[in-house]
Amino acid sequence: MAQKELSFLRKAMKQYHIDWYLIPTDDYHLSEYVGDYFKAREWISGFSGSAGVLVAGLEEAVLFTDGRYFVQAEKELKDSGITLMRSGMEGVPTLEEYLADKIQDGKTFAFDGRVVSALQAKGIEEAFNQAGKNVTTKDVDLITDIWEDRPTRSCQKAFLLEEKYAGESRKSKLIRLREQMEKKKAKGHVIGSLDDIAWLYDIRGGDVECSPLVLSYAYITMEEAFLFIQKDAVTKEVSEELARDGISIENYDAIYDFLKTRKEESVLLYEGNVNTRILKSLSSKVKKINALNPTTELKAIKNPTEIANLKKCHIKDGVALTRFMYKIKTSFEQNKDAGNKKEIEQITEAKAAKYLDGLRLQTEGCVDLSFPTIAAFGSNGAMMHYSAKEEESARLEPGSFFLVDSGGQYYEGTTDVTRTMALGEISPEKKKHFTAVVRGMLNLMGARFLEGCKGVNLDILAREPMWEMDIDYRCGTGHGVGYFLNVHEGPNAIRWRSRPDLSDCELKAGMITTDEPGIYLTDEYGIRIENELLCVEGTKNEYGQFLQFETITFAPIDLDGIDPSFMNQKEKESLNEYHRQVYEKISPFLSEEERQWLKRYTRPIK
Amino acid sequence: MAQKELSFLRKAMKQYHIDWYLIPTDDYHLSEYVGDYFKAREWISGFSGSAGVLVAGLEEAVLFTDGRYFVQAEKELKDSGITLMRSGMEGVPTLEEYLADKIQDGKTFAFDGRVVSALQAKGIEEAFNQAGKNVTTKDVDLITDIWEDRPTRSCQKAFLLEEKYAGESRKSKLIRLREQMEKKKAKGHVIGSLDDIAWLYDIRGGDVECSPLVLSYAYITMEEAFLFIQKDAVTKEVSEELARDGISIENYDAIYDFLKTRKEESVLLYEGNVNTRILKSLSSKVKKINALNPTTELKAIKNPTEIANLKKCHIKDGVALTRFMYKIKTSFEQNKDAGNKKEIEQITEAKAAKYLDGLRLQTEGCVDLSFPTIAAFGSNGAMMHYSAKEEESARLEPGSFFLVDSGGQYYEGTTDVTRTMALGEISPEKKKHFTAVVRGMLNLMGARFLEGCKGVNLDILAREPMWEMDIDYRCGTGHGVGYFLNVHEGPNAIRWRSRPDLSDCELKAGMITTDEPGIYLTDEYGIRIENELLCVEGTKNEYGQFLQFETITFAPIDLDGIDPSFMNQKEKESLNEYHRQVYEKISPFLSEEERQWLKRYTRPIK
Repeated sequence: MAQKELSFLRKAMKQYHIDWYLIPTDDYHLSEYVGDYFKAREWISGFSGSAGVLVAGLEEAVLFTDGRYFVQAEKELKDSGITLMRSGMEGVPTLEEYLADKIQDGKTFAFDGRVVSALQAKGIEEAFNQAGKNVTTKDVDLITDIWEDRPTRSCQKAFLLEEKYAGESRKSKLIRLREQMEKKKAKGHVIGSLDDIAWLYDIRGGDVECSPLVLSYAYITMEEAFLFIQKDAVTKEVSEELARDGISIENYDAIYDFLKTRKEESVLLYEGNVNTRILKSLSSKVKKINALNPTTELKAIKNPTEIANLKKCHIKDGVALTRFMYKIKTSFEQNKDAGNKKEIEQITEAKAAKYLDGLRLQTEGCVDLSFPTIAAFGSNGAMMHYSAKEEESARLEPGSFFLVDSGGQYYEGTTDVTRTMALGEISPEKKKHFTAVVRGMLNLMGARFLEGCKGVNLDILAREPMWEMDIDYRCGTGHGVGYFLNVHEGPNAIRWRSRPDLSDCELKAGMITTDEPGIYLTDEYGIRIENELLCVEGTKNEYGQFLQFETITFAPIDLDGIDPSFMNQKEKESLNEYHRQVYEKISPFLSEEERQWLKRYTRPIK
Repeated sequence: MAQKELSFLRKAMKQYHIDWYLIPTDDYHLSEYVGDYFKAREWISGFSGSAGVLVAGLEEAVLFTDGRYFVQAEKELKDSGITLMRSGMEGVPTLEEYLADKIQDGKTFAFDGRVVSALQAKGIEEAFNQAGKNVTTKDVDLITDIWEDRPTRSCQKAFLLEEKYAGESRKSKLIRLREQMEKKKAKGHVIGSLDDIAWLYDIRGGDVECSPLVLSYAYITMEEAFLFIQKDAVTKEVSEELARDGISIENYDAIYDFLKTRKEESVLLYEGNVNTRILKSLSSKVKKINALNPTTELKAIKNPTEIANLKKCHIKDGVALTRFMYKIKTSFEQNKDAGNKKEIEQITEAKAAKYLDGLRLQTEGCVDLSFPTIAAFGSNGAMMHYSAKEEESARLEPGSFFLVDSGGQYYEGTTDVTRTMALGEISPEKKKHFTAVVRGMLNLMGARFLEGCKGVNLDILAREPMWEMDIDYRCGTGHGVGYFLNVHEGPNAIRWRSRPDLSDCELKAGMITTDEPGIYLTDEYGIRIENELLCVEGTKNEYGQFLQFETITFAPIDLDGIDPSFMNQKEKESLNEYHRQVYEKISPFLSEEERQWLKRYTRPIK
């Protein structure tokens, strides 16, 4: 049986003579996380994960999501009348294959052209053509009419990031961007991605949960620069300072009409992150140059100011996390000693997360979390992006793992860190798995490689300990991280499969990428250890420029989960050296009791 | 000062009003190794390496070659008036960039269209266009006229490979090829690559040194199959048997005129291995489908008969190599004991190679070497594809390495194996390097990975021990190997850089790839250890199909080069297990003395 919301949608579809309607997870900027105003897919399907596409026909409906969300989606879609499509699994069609196969000749297919990327719209169109299907595709917003209690569109005040944090002026960034535009022979450039705009204009806000973004678009020519932004989000001071740097403010929703009037002979845009209505708004006379936004590459390489700030904020962040780990681990130790089961029963995932969030948000300079904290006990940890709802939150108990993935937004950067703790005594099998994950993390951290290497070259260093046991984690090993921006930010990433929708990016000095292998056993447990790695230069010699990683995340790794007999000498030394640094950097900010605990908790292993 | 041959070429260029002439290393089939008839680049430049492109202007000339040949080319080009272009090094333009930059507007550029691939010709054309240069490009053979003592074109008798060796009938192969053609919507298919033709028609010959190839072209439609071959190469028996399988014989040189007459609406050809004259011979009305020859992928996956045969021939081959190693190693040991320096001085690289070649060619079923044996002492080993000329051949002396890369052509397969031996006592630094190479080889050999992995994913397993020391080997880690065919055969390969001219091929069960990391220190020494790995299926579970490698090469690895303190337990166990198998498989075919030596030489290390 379909839910009430789905029936509203179908009613609207019939009214507009639409046979199939597609609702992705995106906002107008194809952001990874979106404001509540844009959560139409969740509203209709009930599935709350951060990635997934709903396709509704008049009789049937499916939801595509990826391996991170299989378990969660299965739960949340129960009795919704929506079938789960497990993307990437054997025999499961891609979204495009599904549409081309399912939608019959002569039917009408629609979506809101502001929430579908130009790339995806093209891909679907191509799939229909290849299947020889004559399908009418329309750009229609059906959601606004039917969603009565829709949250209002966020319109937080935007603020400017000072140069002591940004490390580079707006003017300098515009010069570098225009150099890149010139190289690509682009006279104009439209940017739809909020992180690119925030970086370019040194502007931050609060329109997306946990991401200091401002709903906006940008258009840049060789002489002009425009910022399309909700009028109420801009103060006089902000608009004056931007004007001094040659940036004109326009109304947020005016972008489409504005683009229709542009006369630049060539416009650079990245089909992967501008919506299809933007592309269609440009005159057919304009030559469209489809290439990654130059800002994406420019901002991925952190400047010396950003790097210095990041190192500071990661220590502060590590102190909060270490205090949290102290609390959790010692409450289990004390319990063990005292035989007092009561206290443990009182710790739930949600309470633990709240405690950690509190510690982090109290930290000086911390503006927000960088994503909703994942605090997952036991089998909940097998859901890669589990989010504990207060009322269903599991209690922590001895004998399994507690996985906590969290991070903060600071003026001095964005953090993302995962620690998995063994609660009480755990089985030898669990220790073997935990040790494998730690080994993978350490092996990637210790990589030394030549410039020119991409994530696909390095991924196996982290993954091999799992593959050796015929286990895989169904996701990449690491992602880029923004500076006081998105917690997932390309183009750098570490994964083993090339992804045609993402440019396979060479790792460069100054880039920050996470290192987060894991093991996820459905209905059993999840283990993930995640540090952030700064890519730095090593030796340069006749073979080229060598690169290596400097870890910037500092928090202990639970030795209670480790069986050293599975580690080789190099891995042990690497862990011991990491723990030495953790103690050195974190202990000065702890209480005496915490410090003593950390000393023991980071002891060298043999 | 230009050489005599270069001056002949320039005279011909002037006569034909050609300003720039390009001479690659290829034959009409873009083969890796070519018959003497086709060695025009070597004849003119004096550079004898197996890869390189000569570009001659009227005033200047350059030769492009890759890292394997820098040292050798430098030597051989001395005083030739030809400048060496080190491809891949910083600041060195690509061939296309060089041509587009160098050749001025209005000039005429030419090459023999039979020895330049369609892909390369297109690339050069594009480079001229992008540079806005108006250059006339001509397909002219200038070599035949000027090369007076040119060797005759090889025309060895072709023979058919029995099904007990091939494991699949011609008819079955044609069915599978036509299925693939249908998938690609190709009505016709022209094959220029000799290994593809040899595999498809189960035909072998001797037109290329060390490769059992027959100079030929093939053209296949849904109903017909043609073999273009030199008339004198075909016996009545061969032509009758081919006719029984529906294959018509045509004259070798008639291919171009034949293609002009074809009416198939679509023709599959791979621009990377058909020459540009072939492409230009097809009518402009024919739709050209540029894709890897299906046969390339089909033949890379060895069938069970081929695999069983290969395992047999590798043991025979390993026996020959082990006997050779016994001889070299013991003569140095004896010398050490007896203080007899005389015998050592008498062993030269060339003598050693000759001795090994003799042992191999005496082996039952061995038809030929699979490439000229590389026997390189000390600093000669730093030249990756060094070939010892008898008169300049170095003497083996204690204190350095002797690198021997060799292989055989058997009815039961093609082998390729490298061993590096430590002669006498070597320095700790040399041992450290040798151990790193062995570790890299073992680590790749032990890989376990999911189906879908490509060479770019695995390369770092072999390379990391070198990168850890800020050393690189400037080539891939491994290449595919044919079955009684080419010793280098794609599409599978293990390298870290994606190569746009080669399809990035997924590793599949049944493929054979070499595992040959190395260290090459110019003017010092070279170390390489090379085994062949058969890709086999491992566990299949919810994560997918796991794959792993089975080593099929068996010959000892010199423990005198190894310092176990650089190896972890897993690496030591892996080496010990490999040596256990070497002894088990090779020892039954040795003399008592050899067997005792092998026992000691393959002892477990701790």
